[in-house]
Amino acid sequence: MIDESEWRRRVYQANMDLVRLGLVLFTWGNASAVDRERGVVWIKPSGVDYARLGPDDIVPVSLADGSVLAGTLRPSSDTPTHLELYRAWPQLGGIVHTHSEYATAVAQAGVPIPILGSTHADYFAGDIPVTRQLTQEEVEREYEANTGKVIIERFARSGLDPVSMPGVLVDQHGPFAWGITVEQAVLHAGTLEHLARMYGHASALGVRLRLIPRHLLNKHYQRKHGPRAYYGQAKP
Amino acid sequence: MIDESEWRRRVYQANMDLVRLGLVLFTWGNASAVDRERGVVWIKPSGVDYARLGPDDIVPVSLADGSVLAGTLRPSSDTPTHLELYRAWPQLGGIVHTHSEYATAVAQAGVPIPILGSTHADYFAGDIPVTRQLTQEEVEREYEANTGKVIIERFARSGLDPVSMPGVLVDQHGPFAWGITVEQAVLHAGTLEHLARMYGHASALGVRLRLIPRHLLNKHYQRKHGPRAYYGQAKP
Amino acid sequence: MIDESEWRRRVYQANMDLVRLGLVLFTWGNASAVDRERGVVWIKPSGVDYARLGPDDIVPVSLADGSVLAGTLRPSSDTPTHLELYRAWPQLGGIVHTHSEYATAVAQAGVPIPILGSTHADYFAGDIPVTRQLTQEEVEREYEANTGKVIIERFARSGLDPVSMPGVLVDQHGPFAWGITVEQAVLHAGTLEHLARMYGHASALGVRLRLIPRHLLNKHYQRKHGPRAYYGQAKP
Amino acid sequence: MIDESEWRRRVYQANMDLVRLGLVLFTWGNASAVDRERGVVWIKPSGVDYARLGPDDIVPVSLADGSVLAGTLRPSSDTPTHLELYRAWPQLGGIVHTHSEYATAVAQAGVPIPILGSTHADYFAGDIPVTRQLTQEEVEREYEANTGKVIIERFARSGLDPVSMPGVLVDQHGPFAWGITVEQAVLHAGTLEHLARMYGHASALGVRLRLIPRHLLNKHYQRKHGPRAYYGQAKP
Repeated sequence: MIDESEWRRRVYQANMDLVRLGLVLFTWGNASAVDRERGVVWIKPSGVDYARLGPDDIVPVSLADGSVLAGTLRPSSDTPTHLELYRAWPQLGGIVHTHSEYATAVAQAGVPIPILGSTHADYFAGDIPVTRQLTQEEVEREYEANTGKVIIERFARSGLDPVSMPGVLVDQHGPFAWGITVEQAVLHAGTLEHLARMYGHASALGVRLRLIPRHLLNKHYQRKHGPRAYYGQAKP
Repeated sequence: MIDESEWRRRVYQANMDLVRLGLVLFTWGNASAVDRERGVVWIKPSGVDYARLGPDDIVPVSLADGSVLAGTLRPSSDTPTHLELYRAWPQLGGIVHTHSEYATAVAQAGVPIPILGSTHADYFAGDIPVTRQLTQEEVEREYEANTGKVIIERFARSGLDPVSMPGVLVDQHGPFAWGITVEQAVLHAGTLEHLARMYGHASALGVRLRLIPRHLLNKHYQRKHGPRAYYGQAKP
Repeated sequence: MIDESEWRRRVYQANMDLVRLGLVLFTWGNASAVDRERGVVWIKPSGVDYARLGPDDIVPVSLADGSVLAGTLRPSSDTPTHLELYRAWPQLGGIVHTHSEYATAVAQAGVPIPILGSTHADYFAGDIPVTRQLTQEEVEREYEANTGKVIIERFARSGLDPVSMPGVLVDQHGPFAWGITVEQAVLHAGTLEHLARMYGHASALGVRLRLIPRHLLNKHYQRKHGPRAYYGQAKP
Repeated sequence: MIDESEWRRRVYQANMDLVRLGLVLFTWGNASAVDRERGVVWIKPSGVDYARLGPDDIVPVSLADGSVLAGTLRPSSDTPTHLELYRAWPQLGGIVHTHSEYATAVAQAGVPIPILGSTHADYFAGDIPVTRQLTQEEVEREYEANTGKVIIERFARSGLDPVSMPGVLVDQHGPFAWGITVEQAVLHAGTLEHLARMYGHASALGVRLRLIPRHLLNKHYQRKHGPRAYYGQAKP
């Protein structure tokens, strides 16, 4: 089992990587990891400046009931969203939320990110979906938990697999991304922003955009993630 | 009471933060704070290179009459705008003016920044307004003071509260932002630029943009600023 | 003859320069050089983090059959594309592939980069072409080698010279660039991204764009590359 | 009189500032200053990497006949353009040429940068003009000197003053900027790029853009440059 200090270090590092990758302005982002053996979610504290953040500030929260398990800092206000996703999808090991510039702009426009090329297919096996709007009642009561619920609803409606579609745009809000590990969640959050940027730049050319053909999508996704994947180094 | 060296340090730091956040090119920006107990506004000197700026260069100016209270440096040429705003709105503790790239571009286009998402609602409780043009007479006599006056007029016309709407675009000129403290004014100036960027990127997608519903606006603004705010850490 | 450690150093440096120039996010890029005397292609290993890359990690591959000649690391998954290009075009000394933001966006839109100005003509003697789509069969069998083949087909179809047209967009995939040396391939990859950015920005102005006249194209290309070139310093 | 080492230092620093300001990619830019007392133009050598540039590499060229006065390095290939401008306009002390991203994109589109706001009016007293295309003959013989001549022709045609209009776009080529000193030329080159960026961003909003009224233009230009200028610190 991974010990506590290692969870703190990894979640701290993931949060700092969001800053390094230019995905976060001010305090607007959070990364978490789940320790499924102990039932603990490790997450960034709410509203703390990244320049003052340290591994000891990462907050342990109960996966079962959301209670804070140690320390005096409040967890991210988005913690209930993370908890909903971890509970619904046991494959998830890490989650990232940011207000990164282009991904948030596309979320504000309320449209999916269409799968226009191989960079997209390398990580996301189709258009990156956008949720429906939350109702007034969903916003007023348990807003953050309901944000998680509309994400899960969106995936259920289209039969999407959160492993091959590791991110989403919440309508008029912003992107969430996730992965098997928190490090992979950061990778997917950065990729999602890059895809949103390229969608924006391609749109500005005034050309009719085309989705990639199914065989190109399959090839790119499978060469990285399929049973005969050959991208990267052999796992020891 | 905060002593003089602390005011100098804070206003110096706020000005340097504008550079660090990429909001300022060359000498095009200024931040000030007001010491209401002593009736002193601390502001950046005019046209001084940030690389040579130090806390001792921050200029103390009388809130009552605009006279320079110490030193030999001239205050920012925008000082009369700051003074008008501080006099009209006693809630203000700090003001920032920049020519940041996207916010200034939207100001040049002469349109407000529409409230398209939750990032916006977290800090600005509605569309960020744009002033009317100044008349020829307003430009030719006391231009900078009149810039402050058209901002105040714009807020009075729509019954806007400068605390829940901490920024404005001056038509064909650029953004002003403010806050309870100068540090908050910097936060709002950076947020305003980020919102202008996202408005630009969303516009380029060729999709009809929608304002966020009232309940989502209220939720986001209130969870950060309302009486039952739960974002960030408890204040000691 | 250049010795092995020098090939490793140069290819390592070229790969790091892609990061420094902002052309690469995560592990999405690769640079190679060919030692034609020994029949060896030196290339980045697949999926290795740039922060951990060193000269000793550069993989030597047989130009003749693609086999790995030393070490335990797998070469870039794009190695078969590099090999096809080196075999077809003996003038080439280095090749670069990236997913740089604007060049990839234009590739996703599936249009060439039109020759709009002198910056373009300084390095590319005409519109930067885009390949056709690969067929389903080309994708499913030997995808990376076929990527090289459609590039070569595109050049043959229009009678393009890979020396005066040192780059291409692969449809819905991204850019490849090359040169007499790997250092020149990096220069051309950076130039291609800059040209794609300027094409995007010019498109957004809503003005009808014009190709440059033939005499301006010739002048710029020849003053850098022709027999009476006078750009740069005299070669010793 | 300023001594030789000081001219070298200033022109070296101006060239490095172009890199620091993000105006230059690879070797694509040059700054020069003129010593009118000695009739010497100090300019960057052609095609030399900025990372290897030092003050001793700056090339002295005769203002009268363009001959190199010392050293073994060739001056920038754009030297004849600089010489034409220095000869036509005795007010000029420094000139900068870049291929900065947005200014070059607007030059490629072949349109002027319209005066949309006060940032523009602070430094340029009207739309930044674009030259006509050079004829085939002008390109084929003495291209660089003719580039200077079409700039001068453009200014003469509209009665423009190079002091209050310190820059231009050369059609399908890129921007030139200048000033009383080489440091001011750098300031104007950076401002021109910022204005081109804001023009691009404003264009993408889909709003009809308006030129600023004459009284606002005059006010901004005069408060920085007029006989009763009050921006910046008093000159000692």
